[in-house]
Amino acid sequence: MKIGKVTVPRTAIATSDEHTIVVRGRDLSRDLIGKVSFVEHFFLLLTGRMPTAGQAEVLNATLVAIAEHGLVPSVQAARMTFAAAPDAMQGAVAAGILGCGSVVLGSSETAGRLFSEIDARVQAGAALDDAALAAMKDWRTAGRAIPGYGHPQHKERDERVGALFGVARHAGTDLRFVAIAEAAETLLAQVLNKDLKLNVSGAIPAVLLGAGFPLQALKGVPILARTAGLIAHLYEEIEQPIGFALSYQATREMVYEGVLPEGFGKHP
Amino acid sequence: MKIGKVTVPRTAIATSDEHTIVVRGRDLSRDLIGKVSFVEHFFLLLTGRMPTAGQAEVLNATLVAIAEHGLVPSVQAARMTFAAAPDAMQGAVAAGILGCGSVVLGSSETAGRLFSEIDARVQAGAALDDAALAAMKDWRTAGRAIPGYGHPQHKERDERVGALFGVARHAGTDLRFVAIAEAAETLLAQVLNKDLKLNVSGAIPAVLLGAGFPLQALKGVPILARTAGLIAHLYEEIEQPIGFALSYQATREMVYEGVLPEGFGKHP
Amino acid sequence: MKIGKVTVPRTAIATSDEHTIVVRGRDLSRDLIGKVSFVEHFFLLLTGRMPTAGQAEVLNATLVAIAEHGLVPSVQAARMTFAAAPDAMQGAVAAGILGCGSVVLGSSETAGRLFSEIDARVQAGAALDDAALAAMKDWRTAGRAIPGYGHPQHKERDERVGALFGVARHAGTDLRFVAIAEAAETLLAQVLNKDLKLNVSGAIPAVLLGAGFPLQALKGVPILARTAGLIAHLYEEIEQPIGFALSYQATREMVYEGVLPEGFGKHP
Amino acid sequence: MKIGKVTVPRTAIATSDEHTIVVRGRDLSRDLIGKVSFVEHFFLLLTGRMPTAGQAEVLNATLVAIAEHGLVPSVQAARMTFAAAPDAMQGAVAAGILGCGSVVLGSSETAGRLFSEIDARVQAGAALDDAALAAMKDWRTAGRAIPGYGHPQHKERDERVGALFGVARHAGTDLRFVAIAEAAETLLAQVLNKDLKLNVSGAIPAVLLGAGFPLQALKGVPILARTAGLIAHLYEEIEQPIGFALSYQATREMVYEGVLPEGFGKHP
Repeated sequence: MKIGKVTVPRTAIATSDEHTIVVRGRDLSRDLIGKVSFVEHFFLLLTGRMPTAGQAEVLNATLVAIAEHGLVPSVQAARMTFAAAPDAMQGAVAAGILGCGSVVLGSSETAGRLFSEIDARVQAGAALDDAALAAMKDWRTAGRAIPGYGHPQHKERDERVGALFGVARHAGTDLRFVAIAEAAETLLAQVLNKDLKLNVSGAIPAVLLGAGFPLQALKGVPILARTAGLIAHLYEEIEQPIGFALSYQATREMVYEGVLPEGFGKHP
Repeated sequence: MKIGKVTVPRTAIATSDEHTIVVRGRDLSRDLIGKVSFVEHFFLLLTGRMPTAGQAEVLNATLVAIAEHGLVPSVQAARMTFAAAPDAMQGAVAAGILGCGSVVLGSSETAGRLFSEIDARVQAGAALDDAALAAMKDWRTAGRAIPGYGHPQHKERDERVGALFGVARHAGTDLRFVAIAEAAETLLAQVLNKDLKLNVSGAIPAVLLGAGFPLQALKGVPILARTAGLIAHLYEEIEQPIGFALSYQATREMVYEGVLPEGFGKHP
Repeated sequence: MKIGKVTVPRTAIATSDEHTIVVRGRDLSRDLIGKVSFVEHFFLLLTGRMPTAGQAEVLNATLVAIAEHGLVPSVQAARMTFAAAPDAMQGAVAAGILGCGSVVLGSSETAGRLFSEIDARVQAGAALDDAALAAMKDWRTAGRAIPGYGHPQHKERDERVGALFGVARHAGTDLRFVAIAEAAETLLAQVLNKDLKLNVSGAIPAVLLGAGFPLQALKGVPILARTAGLIAHLYEEIEQPIGFALSYQATREMVYEGVLPEGFGKHP
Repeated sequence: MKIGKVTVPRTAIATSDEHTIVVRGRDLSRDLIGKVSFVEHFFLLLTGRMPTAGQAEVLNATLVAIAEHGLVPSVQAARMTFAAAPDAMQGAVAAGILGCGSVVLGSSETAGRLFSEIDARVQAGAALDDAALAAMKDWRTAGRAIPGYGHPQHKERDERVGALFGVARHAGTDLRFVAIAEAAETLLAQVLNKDLKLNVSGAIPAVLLGAGFPLQALKGVPILARTAGLIAHLYEEIEQPIGFALSYQATREMVYEGVLPEGFGKHP
């Protein structure tokens, strides 16, 4: 069935013949394997350009920062799934990735959109603080949450934020989105009436946008990073299974709020 | 509900308090962000040990080798899924990862098992060729395919194989699984009556097992690598959509083999 | 980690002890197995109430209407995934379901939201046509597509629409959302400047909302229905594999738009 | 890329033109919508034949039996996923389905394979008890678990088993796989040295194989049934969120077994 107008598939990422796999114009076996790191390769795949050392440094740091945070919901989902379907590691990874949504891990991309809107106002001549305040007020008026600030566990500024900003300074990449993120952090209390600090999902776009990482691909960073963490957890699950223990604990205090049929619990 | 005997979840990967995230005994913000690459971090997450430079070199090379091969089935599945559900990049990545199964990308792990069996025979005193032949014959007797050899497109030895073996030699990691993979390649014709060459799914465990990567986690390497490729394709899909074009092309020559109800195709 | 305020899980759907599984207040083995159809059970699970005969008739009809439409993108994704990972049928079904997104199958729910907004205006005293026109104009002003109208293949009104409306009339369920859907169909040309007819994703909420099906669960109808179709396709895939043929066809006319390294295609 | 020999996709399930959708030889809008139940439609999609009343009765009963069992691991995974990614119900359903694996829900298919092997021995002339004992011993010799018996919660025979067998007797479908399942239940203690009773995953193939349901599609029954249950849980999750509460409870007694960096927990 024809859906839409495009009927011929086009791609600029890769092609191959019997002898050679071409990735972004390079011969994969000759020019890339053993010559570039996986993270440089990821940047190349995404943008078509090899990253500078500074860009690669920043991208590495963000992936390290977000890869792992213990037995969080997506890890639990993955380990429970693996316990039930141990033949299909790919299914358990997929279950974990499916939790990279708008509430928990997807806010990197949304925060990146906010910072880009602020940046556009600045590029158009506004002062940074005015731009930040106006953009945040617009978001609130439209009923949208301000992404990238606050954390259920880290009430002060998440220590990963400072670490990432330090890396960006060291790497020499563009710091203007860091300035935007910090301006918005200072002004946020005027918009929300509570004092929330930058979290890791705010810091990631702040450093990545300045490193030339595409806004629309930001959601890919937590997805790729968490995949690494999920694989580590699934390997641990093979060695020391806890998937069903997590599930057991989760419902120990479960309250059933429905009706019970007559005789339930009174079995002879 | 209690399933199995373990009721308390245990992990050695990560923990945290309000201030500090601990990953494999390190303070994430102080010791890891900006200090280690994402691939070193992946190795650390998985094994609890920081890789040597050689181990990291080999792991990087395998991830680069398997990340991308053009519009393969899993990429098509992901791009079609994203075209239909553009709000959920994580869902499209998950759809692509679900194709990392036993037939296409999972054979790295199976090949690793074969090589480990051969290695165990060698450790027990057998000559390499005898060990390889005996293990392959056992697999065939049990009705199992020999994984890691042959490719639908690359009839000669896939060029990625030589590139990966070159990296392993340069990196100075243990080469005994490379020797095993090559011995099995030479002897394979005696077992299969056809001459198949090592493919990338055979080369990956050959170099990774020698670099201290755990056998049971091998399936994670194509999963992580392909996640990077999938994200690049989904970003391209946002910029230049072909998901529905792929689907349209796929069925242009479709043959319906069922019955047709009377009057079908004769609408006035 | 504590996310949000709720810490005790509660559910009204089911509980069990060693002897009895309770579903929505009924003893599953005594009151439901063999006593109710699967579709009645689904309605009960969802709403806590057993459907009337008319409600069950309408729900059955919508599930039948949307279960299958040939080798559409989500079916292709599922069959390709199964070809690559044949040990994990659940993974292939999941890949297919992940395509039930906002563009292709999720519009049932969005159309239901539009019809509910129109209904609210009517309940508040507006004439039906005024309410429909005002709501559609509001959606367009907010930059939203009008869901439930138009189909890439069925340019006239999709025949499933009339069939579903006929079922609703026969079943005696509330027809007011059918009237809303038809009023909007008539007025749509004033909003869009093109004449689109009701499609099956518009007809489904039109009949289901009148049958007491909850608005927020509408997306579940195409998901459940397609799961049945996907299982049929995966069973056919076992018997007659076409997953890789679909993938091969999809890229026969593929255009690579990137650079080629020197010497590509000129292998000796 | 060409993988395998088939290059033209063929299907006997459905086709369509601009006016008519054909499903298994029927005009969907004229012959099926409003004329057949969803479960009859599922049987038709799968087998190409309309089920008898008895076959539909049995299939309905199995789907009802397995659709729901409270906050089991796959439901927890789905609700956690939905809490994190509330915009993508399809992703949360997919996460739940991915837990329909070999350990928890997939054993219906494996049990069906065991019963079919026993049946083949009986068709070849063996006495039922001899056939059952020999097949089970073969499975144990091959290191395989005997599927379809035992349940972590229901130590006596799961009440759903008797209910399903009662439906099969009432429906008048072939009872020979019920006889096989019960013979194996009686003899199992001789093979395992523990006395396990038939569970619902054993009862499902016992009644479905006798109702003409294809062995290779058995895994689809728990998948379809659980999809209904998952949708109900996700609708409840919208109304009363517990996804994060489940995750919080799951780790309250979590033990971190790794090293702690100096100063952890002693923040000023």
